[in-house]
Amino acid sequence: MAAVSFSADEAAAAAARVMARCDALAEISETPGALTRVYLSPEHLRANQRVGEWMQAAGMRVWQDSVGNICGRYEGLTVDAPALLLGSHLDTVRNAGRYDGMLGVLTAIETVAWLHRQQRRLPQAIEIVGFADEEGTRFGITLLGSRGLTGRWPAAWSTQPDGNRITVAEAMADAGLDAARIGEAAREVSHISAYLELHIEQGPVLEQSGLALGVVTAINGARRLNCGFVGHAGHAGTVPMSHRQDALAAAAEWMVAIEQLAPRRGRDLVATVGALQCLPGAVNVIPGEVNLTLDVRGPEEAPLAALLADLLRTGETIAQRRGVRFHAEEYYAIPATPCDPALQAAISTAVAQVQGRSLALPSGAGHDAIAIAERWPVGMLFVRCRGGVSHHPAEAVQAEDVALAIQAYSLVVQRVAGGHVSGEAA
Amino acid sequence: MAAVSFSADEAAAAAARVMARCDALAEISETPGALTRVYLSPEHLRANQRVGEWMQAAGMRVWQDSVGNICGRYEGLTVDAPALLLGSHLDTVRNAGRYDGMLGVLTAIETVAWLHRQQRRLPQAIEIVGFADEEGTRFGITLLGSRGLTGRWPAAWSTQPDGNRITVAEAMADAGLDAARIGEAAREVSHISAYLELHIEQGPVLEQSGLALGVVTAINGARRLNCGFVGHAGHAGTVPMSHRQDALAAAAEWMVAIEQLAPRRGRDLVATVGALQCLPGAVNVIPGEVNLTLDVRGPEEAPLAALLADLLRTGETIAQRRGVRFHAEEYYAIPATPCDPALQAAISTAVAQVQGRSLALPSGAGHDAIAIAERWPVGMLFVRCRGGVSHHPAEAVQAEDVALAIQAYSLVVQRVAGGHVSGEAA
Repeated sequence: MAAVSFSADEAAAAAARVMARCDALAEISETPGALTRVYLSPEHLRANQRVGEWMQAAGMRVWQDSVGNICGRYEGLTVDAPALLLGSHLDTVRNAGRYDGMLGVLTAIETVAWLHRQQRRLPQAIEIVGFADEEGTRFGITLLGSRGLTGRWPAAWSTQPDGNRITVAEAMADAGLDAARIGEAAREVSHISAYLELHIEQGPVLEQSGLALGVVTAINGARRLNCGFVGHAGHAGTVPMSHRQDALAAAAEWMVAIEQLAPRRGRDLVATVGALQCLPGAVNVIPGEVNLTLDVRGPEEAPLAALLADLLRTGETIAQRRGVRFHAEEYYAIPATPCDPALQAAISTAVAQVQGRSLALPSGAGHDAIAIAERWPVGMLFVRCRGGVSHHPAEAVQAEDVALAIQAYSLVVQRVAGGHVSGEAA
Repeated sequence: MAAVSFSADEAAAAAARVMARCDALAEISETPGALTRVYLSPEHLRANQRVGEWMQAAGMRVWQDSVGNICGRYEGLTVDAPALLLGSHLDTVRNAGRYDGMLGVLTAIETVAWLHRQQRRLPQAIEIVGFADEEGTRFGITLLGSRGLTGRWPAAWSTQPDGNRITVAEAMADAGLDAARIGEAAREVSHISAYLELHIEQGPVLEQSGLALGVVTAINGARRLNCGFVGHAGHAGTVPMSHRQDALAAAAEWMVAIEQLAPRRGRDLVATVGALQCLPGAVNVIPGEVNLTLDVRGPEEAPLAALLADLLRTGETIAQRRGVRFHAEEYYAIPATPCDPALQAAISTAVAQVQGRSLALPSGAGHDAIAIAERWPVGMLFVRCRGGVSHHPAEAVQAEDVALAIQAYSLVVQRVAGGHVSGEAA
C-alpha cells in the first residue's frame, strides 16, 4: 500500500491535540508554574500514567518497563513482527520548556492513532516509548531510559545518589521498581527494526532558513576542556607593550583563531569559549593568568578530532611566541552519532513532500537516539522552535509546524514500518 | 665652579647610609612586619621627625609645613636666593616596598650633606621636601602633600573621610595641624626655580636594558574606561558559527586590535585590558555579554587621545560587523605631564657621565612631580628596581645603583642650583 498522509484538517486536529497534551503534561511538575519533572519522581509516574492512557486510546498495548519507560505497542500485520520504535523522553531539566522530549512522544501517538482510526496495520509493528530519563537532571547521569532498552545500563548507575543522597536503586524502590530487574528492560536486537525520533531543533537554523522541518544528519560529538594561559602580571602603566607577558592578550589571540579555524575544518563544526576568568582582574594590572573553557562539537569524529588538535596546537604556538604557558585538560568527551543514511533519505523525502524542500542539519544537543544508535539504526526529524530557545519556559513551537511534522512523520513511519526502507544494522 | 661628583668611595658610603635609612623608615609602620604608613598617622609624624633630624644633620634648617610635609633648606650663596626643590614622598601604600618615595628624599639629603661637608654653597638654595601624601592610601585622594605646596589644594579635600569616617581636617587636628592654615603651605612661584625628583622606576625597562639610571621624558597621562559588548547568548551546540552574536568573540577581536594599535600610534603608548567578565559564563553557552576595562596611557596628550579614539572606533566597527553592541564609558582621566626639556638634558648628561650612556623613558606611574609641574619646571631621574616590582614588600634596589644615582643626582643639582640650567616656567 502506498504511503498516504494525514489530510490538512486531520493534521491540524492532531496538532491541536498535541499542543493541548504538551500543556497538560507541563502541569505535571514538582514546582507549580515552572516545569520540572525528574526521573522516578511522583510526577514522572503521573506523566507515565497519562501518556499510557493516550497510547491505549490510540489502540496500543501499554506497559511500564523495569527502568520506568512508558511503552506502547501497535501490532503489525503479523503477530510478533519486528517493531519500528518511535519515541523521545518525558523527563525535563529544571524550569524547562514543554516541548523538549514530549513533542516526540505525543506526535508518535497521533501517528498510531491515525492508523488505528483507519484500522490499518503495517507489515511491522509500531512501538512508542516515553523515555524515563534523558536529561540526567536528578542523578547527573544521562540517557538512563534508553540505556535500559539497549541493555547497556552500567551496573554502577544503580548506586548513583541524587542531591538528597537517595540512590537510583532506592528511588526505584520508592517508585515501585526493582533495581535487580533493570536487565528486563533490555530488548532483543531482532525485535526492533529501527528508531525514529521527532524533536524540537533547540537551535536557530530552521527558523533562520524559513523552514518548519529538517532532517538530522548526526548528533554532534563533543569535547569539553579547561584551558589556560599563564603569563606575568604587571603594572599597566610601567610595563611597555613589548615587554609584556599578558595572559589575556594571548587568550584573545587564541579565541580569534578558534573562531576562524572551526568552520575551516568542516561544515557544522562549532567551537565555543563560554567561560573566562581573568586574574588578578584589576583595571591597572596586566593579566597574569587566564582560565577559560573550550567546547568543541561536530557531527563527524575525524574532523572534530582534527579541529581540536588544531586548536591545541595553535594555543601552544601562540603561548610560545609570547613567552607564556598554555595548558588544556579535556574533562568530557562524547563521540558523534551518525543517523542512518537510509532513514535520513526517507525522512528527507517525506519532509520535501510536505514543505516543498528538505534541509539537512546536525543536532547540536544530545538525544535518546545516541544510546539507541548503539543497537539499532536511528533517524531524527527536527521541528523549528522559536528563536532556537530551549531548556527555558520560553520554549515554543507553532501548531502549524506540528501539523506539518505529523504529516511528514506519518509518511516516514508508513515507509519504514511498511518494509520499504531498511536501516543498516548498528 | 665646575660640577664635581662624589668619589666612588663617598658615593658607596652615601648609598649604604641611604639603604640603612630606608630600612629604618620601613620600621615606622602601623603594622609590624608589613610597611604601611599613611597620611597624618602617628607613623607619618615619627617618619617626619626622623627625616627632619637627618636634614638637620646635613646642615639644613628644618620645618614641618601646614599640610604635614617635612621640609629642609640649605641656603645658597645669598640669603633668600630662589631654591632648587628636591624631594619625593614619605607615605606608602598598604604592605608597601621601602624605596618607593623614600629613596628620593634620602638621596637628596646625601647630596646636601656632601655639599655641607665641603662647606660649599651654590648660587641657589637647595630645599628638600618629604611629601606627606602622594599615594592617597588613607583618604582615596592623591598628591595632598604636593598640592599643599602649589596652593592648589581643593577646599573640598578637608572634608574627605577615611575608612573610619575621620575627615582630613579632623585627622589634621589629631596630628597637631590646622585645616584652616592649609594655605600657608603654598610657596611663591618666584621662590622656587625647579623641582627634581629621584624615584625607582616601578617598571622593567631599565633592568631589561642593563642600566641603573634613566631620564624621565614625561609622566604618562591616563584614561580608564568601562567597556562592553552585548550580543546574544545561545546553546554552544545548536547555534552554527555563522549564526552567532558571541560577545566574547567580539571582545577577543577587539583585544587583539588594542594590542596591535597601541604601539602604532606612538612609542611609549600602552593599552591594557586588565579585567574581563563574561556572562552567563558556562562552558556550553555562547557568551551574551562581556564587560571589560580599558586602561590607556602615554607621555603625550595628542597621541594618547588619538589612540583612544582609534580603539573606540575599532570596537564600534567590530561590533557592527558582528551584529553586537559596543559601549565604553570613561571614568578616569589624567593628562600627561611632560618633564622640562632643559632639566631632561641636564639629567641625561649627568646619567651618561656616570654610567656611560643615558636612556630616556616615560613614567607609567604617577608622582608628586605631576602636581609640582603645574607651577614649576620638573625633572625626574629613575633608578632601576628588581623585576620592575613595586607596591609590594619584594620591591628592591641595589646599593651600587643607588651610589650611581647619588653621583648623577649631585651633578644635576650642582648644575641647576649653580644657575647653569634654567627650566621653562610652568
